[in-house]
Amino acid sequence: MEKNIEISVLCEIYGKLLTDKQYEFLDDYYNNDLSLSEIAENNNITRQAVRDNIKKGENKLFEYEEKLGLMKKTLLQEEKIAIILSELNKIQDKSSDKQVAKILEHIKNELNCLV
Amino acid sequence: MEKNIEISVLCEIYGKLLTDKQYEFLDDYYNNDLSLSEIAENNNITRQAVRDNIKKGENKLFEYEEKLGLMKKTLLQEEKIAIILSELNKIQDKSSDKQVAKILEHIKNELNCLV
Repeated sequence: MEKNIEISVLCEIYGKLLTDKQYEFLDDYYNNDLSLSEIAENNNITRQAVRDNIKKGENKLFEYEEKLGLMKKTLLQEEKIAIILSELNKIQDKSSDKQVAKILEHIKNELNCLV
Repeated sequence: MEKNIEISVLCEIYGKLLTDKQYEFLDDYYNNDLSLSEIAENNNITRQAVRDNIKKGENKLFEYEEKLGLMKKTLLQEEKIAIILSELNKIQDKSSDKQVAKILEHIKNELNCLV
């Protein structure tokens, strides 16, 4: 996974465990595509202070992922759900029973709410 | 959920975010059913120090759950999986096709690895 995307995903999962400033700077830098200088100017602090805060935030995100592994788990769950959906389609192709079609629809809806 | 069970579940989910001592004392108290006095004696500290450590650990677990909600999410996922399994059984009851039976088996295996 590309690093920028990885940080965005980790931020979405663990963002609430960061300080407000760490979250805000990471969000500005990775999601809103602001430069270090722009964030520094907006917050009336030095570019170096912004860089330090972002680095600390990133390290915390990687530490949480190492300990809890939620990103990895979510990716695995998404893979499994994709497999299940494709297997459900095989049943759909084999059956012309309207009730089965309805049950399959229900299962797919539940599956899509899982992650 | 009963409080003892709740702490055990939270400990399993977020235990790696606690200090070693906090985790060890919570594990001894809630999972291994040791008394505060026994834990104090084993660690050569006062009963009050054990109680403080346990309290701090519990508060951190509740804080993590408030922020990340993983226990709540897991319980909801388990409910949804139970619904899906019961719907799959309905298809199984309606179909005598051996290939469908095989697909259903595959889906159930994948589902059981999801949470």
